[in-house]
Formats: sequence, structure tokens, C-alpha cells
Amino acid sequence: MKCSGDIDVREVEELSINIDPIQAGGRLTPEAMKACIAYGDGYSVCDYCLKPFRLDYIKKPPIAEFHRDLAEWLHMDEVRVVPGARRGFQAVASTLVEKGDPVMLTALSHYTEFVSVEQSGGIPREIPTDEHNRVTADAAGMRIEEVMREFGRPPSLLFVEHVDYQFGNIHEVKEIARVAHSYDVPVLLNGAYSVGIMEVDGSALGVDFVVGSGHKSMAAPAPSGLLAATSERAESVFRTTKVKGDLTERTFGIKEVELMGCTLMGVTIVGMMASFPAVQERVKHFDREIAHSRLITDALLSIEGTEVQSEYPRRHSLTRIDTRGSFDKVAETHKKRGFFLQSELKKRGITGVIPGSTRVWKYNTYGLTDAQAQHVADAFREIAAENGLNVT
Amino acid sequence: MKCSGDIDVREVEELSINIDPIQAGGRLTPEAMKACIAYGDGYSVCDYCLKPFRLDYIKKPPIAEFHRDLAEWLHMDEVRVVPGARRGFQAVASTLVEKGDPVMLTALSHYTEFVSVEQSGGIPREIPTDEHNRVTADAAGMRIEEVMREFGRPPSLLFVEHVDYQFGNIHEVKEIARVAHSYDVPVLLNGAYSVGIMEVDGSALGVDFVVGSGHKSMAAPAPSGLLAATSERAESVFRTTKVKGDLTERTFGIKEVELMGCTLMGVTIVGMMASFPAVQERVKHFDREIAHSRLITDALLSIEGTEVQSEYPRRHSLTRIDTRGSFDKVAETHKKRGFFLQSELKKRGITGVIPGSTRVWKYNTYGLTDAQAQHVADAFREIAAENGLNVT
Repeated sequence: MKCSGDIDVREVEELSINIDPIQAGGRLTPEAMKACIAYGDGYSVCDYCLKPFRLDYIKKPPIAEFHRDLAEWLHMDEVRVVPGARRGFQAVASTLVEKGDPVMLTALSHYTEFVSVEQSGGIPREIPTDEHNRVTADAAGMRIEEVMREFGRPPSLLFVEHVDYQFGNIHEVKEIARVAHSYDVPVLLNGAYSVGIMEVDGSALGVDFVVGSGHKSMAAPAPSGLLAATSERAESVFRTTKVKGDLTERTFGIKEVELMGCTLMGVTIVGMMASFPAVQERVKHFDREIAHSRLITDALLSIEGTEVQSEYPRRHSLTRIDTRGSFDKVAETHKKRGFFLQSELKKRGITGVIPGSTRVWKYNTYGLTDAQAQHVADAFREIAAENGLNVT
Repeated sequence: MKCSGDIDVREVEELSINIDPIQAGGRLTPEAMKACIAYGDGYSVCDYCLKPFRLDYIKKPPIAEFHRDLAEWLHMDEVRVVPGARRGFQAVASTLVEKGDPVMLTALSHYTEFVSVEQSGGIPREIPTDEHNRVTADAAGMRIEEVMREFGRPPSLLFVEHVDYQFGNIHEVKEIARVAHSYDVPVLLNGAYSVGIMEVDGSALGVDFVVGSGHKSMAAPAPSGLLAATSERAESVFRTTKVKGDLTERTFGIKEVELMGCTLMGVTIVGMMASFPAVQERVKHFDREIAHSRLITDALLSIEGTEVQSEYPRRHSLTRIDTRGSFDKVAETHKKRGFFLQSELKKRGITGVIPGSTRVWKYNTYGLTDAQAQHVADAFREIAAENGLNVT
């Protein structure tokens, strides 16, 4: 069925249980969907944009209030919305990183963090992970010391994943921030897999910046996200424009340089806002998500030959699993080869595993109901048993 | 009526004829609205993202095809979608402008162009307008010469408005590009008020870059836009990442540095795509829009004391009008003061004029039907006559 021209209707969430690693936290709430319909037009939130003409001052719809609520919720002083978490990384790197500066990232940093460093001309240095694929404060301290020896100065900025995209592991953010601060290194928390999924308290974690993703974890349309800062850091990252027309002598009010003025003028900001009450509520019930994650991971682990690469027991809904010793053995002789797993899941109404994957792959159980989680767990065990694997 | 939580339903376009200067070209088509409902979820277009894992390679929905069609339509070699025209300016300035470089803008450049220069550390120099508020090739040549004398080198980049946001005037782009190129200065066309509104042929205009706005002029949700380039310039502005993890030795495929990888992952890209057939068609009927613009502008000019500040006769739907000698005289004694005009328009089902404006203000007649245009024209004359102004 086409929804428009040659564009097929997307019915993934309507017809299937979706365990795609990146899509789970970005499914719209019914509230966001309604708001999107009402605010679809390009500049729809600008009807009541009055002086000083900036998005975060608009009162109707209540965008100004949303900004205040967001900051309070994250226990940060200031927040701005951005077109995706990556644009938050970019704003901070562009503010703090000069050409040739060392910048600390982690062995699990997302490519968008690296690219923001590349844009600013910084030199990336990674903090390694430990044997459990976790980034520790000890490793961070060691690497900062190495940077000091190599560059004669500390890194200009340290990026740390709250929850990384590869394993869904939770890292020692608070301890890492403490170490970084002892060298006066500002810390940016990449909350793309945590803000909107689990409770995030930027103040308790002691970070300078929190970046979140609307379309990854806040049930919002893309591209959307947020950049929060302490008041000390807000001054620089949210500095207002100083540029001037040399002939007209025009200046440009209180537009913020790194945000390029207004950021999300329509459906993206309204979608974030409409989902926010549900998002605030859902982070309080992350224990239920963990229970589902564990149920499904344990079902996979009950299939002989399967190993989990993420930390275990699971503390997040995103998990990396190694089925080279189980499903991949089946794939060797199955007439559908590696596609059998996806095909069998599809028969059971489950989608989101990359077609052909039977080796090392990821899934995200976020947002499943109890019954759906049980169904997914049963499905994996059933598929294994039907294909001659030992299920204990 | 609330659409969600404390967010009021927006009914501006449903209940009124909207002549807001920035909103007219960004109203969604019915096709875009349907596509938005189907693709509201965050990462909705990523269901079939296969190697090499980049937005503009996705075949289902047909994003790859859309990119090719867009480039062909603009007569440019390469195109990418961006989160708003400003992110296109940013990508080009970040690529071409080094700290301390002179950059040519115009006396009518938008603040986002200035801010992109500020971000890159460039030094803005403006091309003045002539007595008709038009930017000419002569003025551009003169200013480039002045820059050569001041900096000992030509500007790194020249921004030129196709149609400016202040007057809705059409400028001598082709001639300006020719002059700029004689100094080897690359030219960026700001098509925020032209791409999607009128036919734009980047090749005929001889520009290096075309930037367009989805939410301003392509009937798409915000933030969306496009950056097109000649193949020569595409190589640098769309260069792929070279950054590498120093420990993990990770590299990041063909993600593009200035775009930070993928840009519009859901409703924004699908909205642009769904509106595109209608947008391609509507630019062919720009003459109808001009007729409406002239009808309404002439109605205003028939009110004694009114002057048009935009070029005349009108060649675009965005117009700046000076009613200090007409409606503002009424405001002096009217019990509603300057709010009477908006209030009278509202009674007639017309919205989009900034509340309180009776001095110098703007309107955009884009997308009105013949009957709506006639109604707006009549309304202005009627309001004038009822308030004792001479209407000829």
C-alpha cells in the first residue's frame, strides 16, 4: 500500500514486534502523533514568535516552559533543543576544541562524536574498555596522563557514553567525570541511549554537558535532540552572535552562534514536547525494561553455544549477542542460509534483526509489553529447538 | 482545543487565509501529511538501511532516487538533504572559510548566513543594494575589488540571495556569479525563498552551491532543506570522514564530515519526498502566484499614502509594504491602536500580519487560490475605506 506517490506505507510497528537496536526508543507516543498532525507545517510553531524572536522564548505552544522543564528533569542549568544528538556534539566540540587539540573519546564512542572532533580539527584519543567492555575511571585517568605526556596539556574535552551503542553497557560516568575534572577537562555525557530511557541526573553524574537524542530515545520525530549544560559552560556554548554587517551595521539579536539561531521549528519540537510527559513517566519504570531485557537475553543464553557480549546480567535494553556457536551453525546448512533466523522471527511476528545476521548482532527490547517480551523469548528458544540446537 | 497535554491544536491554516511571510511555502501538501503519519517514528526510514549505511543510499523508501531527482531538478551535480538551509550554509562555510578570511555577503543576507561565517571565523563584507533594494553585479564587483585591496586576496566565498527575505526581490545572480568567478570566488545561492517556489536552474545561474529550505519553501516539515553542489565543489563539501580511533583503529566508512553522517532520518525527509511531485509542478505555475502578489500589492497601493518597498511590479509573492502614510495614520486615533489592522483582517478570516504592525510590514501571498487572493485584496481596500482612508 502506498501512502503517497511511490512511498509505501510503513507498517513495521503496527504489524510486528520490533526489536531493532536503534528504533525502539524513538517510536512516537500517541500524543506525539496527534501533535505532529496538528503541527506538520514547516514553521508551525512560529505563529506567536515575539521579541526577542528565539525558539526557546515561544510561549504558545509552551516551548519556553518545555525548555525549563527539560533542564530541571536532567538536573542541568540550561538546555536547548538541537537537530539530533550529533548537532549537540558539534556545538560543544566547535566551542571547546581548537585545531590540534587532543580530545578524549572512548573505544565505544559513536561515529558522530568522532566526526564532531574531526570538524573542529581535534585529535581523537580513545579510552580503552576493560574485559567486560566497560569504560572505567582508571582507564580514563591513565589515558589523560598519556595525553599530558604526548601533548603537554590535557584534552580540551572528554566524551563519555552513558550507555554505548555497541554493547548497551552502562559506564562509570560519575567516576570518569571526577577524574577528568581533576585535570580541568570538561565532560560531555552522550545520553543518546539513556536520556528518555532511564533516569539521568546530570548534576549527580557531575558532567558539564548532557546530550540526548529525540528520535533515538525520547519518542520524537527526527532529527531532534537536546544539549544541556551547566551554567558555567552554557555561557560559552550558548554564546550569542557578535557578528555585524560592515555596511548595514546590522546585528542579529540573541541568536546563538553554535545553534545558528532557531533549531526545531515544527513537528520535531512539538513531537518532543507531546511525548515528554510519557517519557518522564517511562524512565521511572526502567526496571520493567530491564526485566524484559534479561528475560530475552536469558532465553538466548539457554540456547547452547550462545554467548552475550554485553555486560551480564543486563542493565539496559540494548544487547549484543554472539550466536556463532548456535544460530550460525544452523545457517551453515539451512536452505535459507543466514536468512533463516530473520525469516523464522518474521513468521512469529518479530522484526528488527538485520537480515542475514546469525553471527554477532544486536537487539533492543525497549518498550515491549510483558506478553511481547515473553513471546520474543519463547520464539528464540522455539526456533533454536526446531533447528536442532540444544535448549537447556 | 488541546491536541495533546497542554499543547493547543494549531488550526491556523484550517480556519484562516494565512499571509505570514515565512509560513506560506512550508505548508504541507496532503501527500506530505499522509507520509508524516506513516513515518512519524524517529528512525522510520532506516528499516532498509543496508551497506554502505548512509541516508542517501536508502532505496526503500526511495531516498536515493529522491536525491538523484532533486539534483536533476536543480541542474546541479550532487545534492544532500540538511536540517534546514542554515545547516547548508554552515557546511559550505566550514569547508571553504578559514579564520580571518573575508567572506562576501549582501546587505540583504539572512542572519543564518552571517552566523555560518561567524562560526568559521570569517570576516563578513556586504555588497550594498541599489536604490531599488537590489543587489547588482556592479556592486559585487566593486566590493570584491575593495576586499582585494583590504585583505590582499579575494573572499573565500560569496553568498547571494536568489530572493531576499526582506523585500522578496530577485537579484542579479547570474551576473554576480560571473563576476565572482572572474576572481575565482565560489558562489553560494541562498534559495530559501526560491527553491520549491519558482524554477531554479543552478547550472544556468552558474553557481557553485544551491541551498534550499524544506520548511520554508518545499512544503516539508522542519527542520529540512538541501545543499546542492557542482561536482567540482561536491568533492570538498561532501568529503568523507578520515578520522580514526587511535586504539581501536576504527574508521567510519563513507559518512560525510560536514553533514555528520545522516541528516534527516524520518518525517522530515519523507515529508520533503512526498511533497516533491507537487512542488515540481507548482514551480511551473509561479506566474499565477505573481498575479496574486500583484493583485494584493496593487490593492494596497490603491490606498492613499501606501508605498511598496519591494521592487515593483512584484516578481515574487513576498512583499514589504510601507503603510506609515495610511494604516498607521488610522492607528494614531483608533481605539485598538496599531492592533486594529490585524483585528480587522481577522474578522475577514485573514491572518499572518504581525500583531500591532501598521508601519512597515511584510506579507506573502504564496499558495492562495484566485478567490482567496481577491478576498485579501478586497479586505485591505475595505478596511482602509471603513477607516476613512482614500481608496482610489
